[in-house]
Amino acid sequence: MTGQPGVRAVSRRGLLAGGALAAGGALAGGAVVVAGRDGPTGGPTAPQPSPVAAVGGMVEPFHGPRQAGVATEPQAHAAFVAFTLRPGTDRAALGRLLRLLSDDAARLTQGRPALADTEAELGLLPARLTVTFGFGPGLYRAAGVDDRRPASVADLPALRIDRLQPAWSGGDLLVQICADDAVTVAHAQRVLVKDSRPFATVRWVQQGFRRSPGVEPAGHTQRNLFGQLDGTANPRPGVALDTAVWVPDGPDWLRDSTTLVVRRISMNLETWDLLGRTDRELAVGRRLDTGAPLTGTGEHDEPDFAAVGDDGLTVIPDFSHLTRARVTDDRLKILRRPYNYDGVPSPQGHADSGLIFASYQADVTAQFLPIQRRLADRDLLNEWTTPIGSAVFAVPPGCPPDGWIGQQVLG
Amino acid sequence: MTGQPGVRAVSRRGLLAGGALAAGGALAGGAVVVAGRDGPTGGPTAPQPSPVAAVGGMVEPFHGPRQAGVATEPQAHAAFVAFTLRPGTDRAALGRLLRLLSDDAARLTQGRPALADTEAELGLLPARLTVTFGFGPGLYRAAGVDDRRPASVADLPALRIDRLQPAWSGGDLLVQICADDAVTVAHAQRVLVKDSRPFATVRWVQQGFRRSPGVEPAGHTQRNLFGQLDGTANPRPGVALDTAVWVPDGPDWLRDSTTLVVRRISMNLETWDLLGRTDRELAVGRRLDTGAPLTGTGEHDEPDFAAVGDDGLTVIPDFSHLTRARVTDDRLKILRRPYNYDGVPSPQGHADSGLIFASYQADVTAQFLPIQRRLADRDLLNEWTTPIGSAVFAVPPGCPPDGWIGQQVLG
Ligand code: HEM
Ligand code: HEM
Repeated sequence: MTGQPGVRAVSRRGLLAGGALAAGGALAGGAVVVAGRDGPTGGPTAPQPSPVAAVGGMVEPFHGPRQAGVATEPQAHAAFVAFTLRPGTDRAALGRLLRLLSDDAARLTQGRPALADTEAELGLLPARLTVTFGFGPGLYRAAGVDDRRPASVADLPALRIDRLQPAWSGGDLLVQICADDAVTVAHAQRVLVKDSRPFATVRWVQQGFRRSPGVEPAGHTQRNLFGQLDGTANPRPGVALDTAVWVPDGPDWLRDSTTLVVRRISMNLETWDLLGRTDRELAVGRRLDTGAPLTGTGEHDEPDFAAVGDDGLTVIPDFSHLTRARVTDDRLKILRRPYNYDGVPSPQGHADSGLIFASYQADVTAQFLPIQRRLADRDLLNEWTTPIGSAVFAVPPGCPPDGWIGQQVLG
Repeated sequence: MTGQPGVRAVSRRGLLAGGALAAGGALAGGAVVVAGRDGPTGGPTAPQPSPVAAVGGMVEPFHGPRQAGVATEPQAHAAFVAFTLRPGTDRAALGRLLRLLSDDAARLTQGRPALADTEAELGLLPARLTVTFGFGPGLYRAAGVDDRRPASVADLPALRIDRLQPAWSGGDLLVQICADDAVTVAHAQRVLVKDSRPFATVRWVQQGFRRSPGVEPAGHTQRNLFGQLDGTANPRPGVALDTAVWVPDGPDWLRDSTTLVVRRISMNLETWDLLGRTDRELAVGRRLDTGAPLTGTGEHDEPDFAAVGDDGLTVIPDFSHLTRARVTDDRLKILRRPYNYDGVPSPQGHADSGLIFASYQADVTAQFLPIQRRLADRDLLNEWTTPIGSAVFAVPPGCPPDGWIGQQVLG
């Protein structure tokens, strides 16, 4: 691990590396040869002398008009860290805090240790690290800039399905740390928490996961711990995603900002596992194997909500999650970017599994809330899911290389 | 995710796949093209229509004379699940339990759902899944076969450094679940815990991580959360590892068995981070950057414990972790296979980090204990590390395709 963090070998059994290597720290491309289920006998070409490790050196930009970690293809690991500001952390102190954290994030995401990084060697493999900052209502209050708070950034109204625990709810400042490597996430979390200590206490941390890099093709919809394909109807990158997520205009603390809702939703595997496949598919309105709507055969087929079966009922139940959550207007969609969590089972072996449901949208009230209300009102899935935490944050615009996140709000 | 679990695409940004695809479920090899820090502009070849996802489809054998998950190159994620047998779980019941769990493991590790798998779709991507079974002293007692317990499988003697918490200690049955993917681990854990419920309660679960697949080259020594290269002096695969780990002869419940010590060791990042680099390097006797002994320049240089510096002291301190832990005879070495853990920091931002220290050796008393005693007696590193959990298990031999783990002990 000396000197060339971007140039490493992938030679895990059956993943033998060979091919062209760029000089210096940047990879220009190299062929990695893959053998599979039957091991290296399956016929990979001979390994080359200077192999490349792809995943560790991959970098997401930190600077830019919009923050990273939103439209970024979800990485395998995430830590959502929510802080409570200490009394006295005012606008000037918040400026100091966010300059510091922005500098940490700018370095670590690019594979450079933070300033005075006490575990500098852990800062060299970013693995697509992103650090995304969110501002809760309390931050605007503490800074005396409540007029700059996006109106929809406030506690959600009480919902009858909620069983919210304070330990998983609220927060003045959120740091969402995502990377394709859990060691990288742990190190970044350590640096960012440590630098926050004079200004804030840790309110909650939620750690979650998706598939590891290379386990599934990019763009494949992932499965949650109910086994469902989760993410099918997300707005696609490009116009649809941009329309749903980013505030297109307004003062500079709003333009290119977005909002984030984080809900911790427990998924009751005990009762879910008692259901037959048909009932599970009816609850969502999609098939478990392909993710296709019950009226179709392919994952991305349009659902036909009017189709009626032999029994005279709609094929996709009116109270299915799909029907209730459905939105067709891009301006009203949300971008779901959830992570699975899996805690320690109870002595009796009951799982503590669920979703760190994270959704990005330009406006919570106009986009998230109508969907959430329809679901809270009637959604078959509610039988097996329980929101146990909830928090809402503004995600301010990005910043240029000489700037810091929050400068438009606090500057 | 239908039908061909072994054949999937890797096309994560900059990791574009192309190349030969084997027919059917088995991969014969395909070229994966890698672009790096500068993104896809670096010149990868054009993606091919039928790409391959390497990591998800990779399989470790389950059946064989020795259990997998010991000599197996450590996967990225692990869950150590310890059970307490319910009263009445006798030899016959243990036979039923282990037949069931062996069948689950045999299927899941090969990318097939367990029998009556309620989340069958989560059973298709093994990502090098291994399931390793360990038997605590209580299991032999419950089965009335205490004469088959390896003599060294017993609680460790009390050590003055220990601050053991019952919540992390002991256990009648251990299931070590490792895979390169956290979703795969979570699913396997769910299946195995569920099938154990009639026979046992969950005593503790420890979840840990190492680098994700592809982040670092295979064989590279990994870093722990102190930033140290951890694993340098492990016995190498082949004769050295085999000599240290596997019982070479004896009755069939001992031959090809090994033992496992699991210690949860908290690492105090707060005080460690106050140390300068020199002091940290003295504590271990190795450099932080290269992992070289303080008397050398390369990670695998032989340490010179006699070398004396200008100050008249040994260059490698006599109480360094390296000096105290050093073993040169292969028969007395241990195979360390640790995972990092990173819990939720305290409100004041103090980390809850450490090592799930897991070591395999043919005999606990002859190999592990002398090292542990020397370390407990005097080891500079003790200042920053605290054992908070401890458990010892026999790891019985493997089994053939028509057998089950434990058959030599319980059959
Ligand atoms: C643990 C809780 C939840 C689970 C397991 C879950 C699962 C799913 C699944 C399987 C789908 C179908 C595939 C897809 O398009 O992703 C889906 C769709 C969707 N869900 Fe959820 N969901 C949960 C909570 C929520 C919440 C809290 C919201 C928002 C308030 C939400 C909003 C949506 C939306 C907007 C869609 C797409 C509907 C469409 O337009 O087709 N879900 N969800
Ligand atoms: C959190 C606790 C621990 C940390 C951070 C730690 C860290 C290290 C490091 C950095 C090395 C040098 C590089 C290497 O060879 O891996 C090392 C070596 C070693 N450690 Fe530990 N260690 C810990 C606990 C233990 C325990 C509990 C034992 C056994 C009882 C142990 C046994 C060894 C052995 C046998 C070596 C190799 C010594 C040699 O022959 O060169 N360690 N450890």
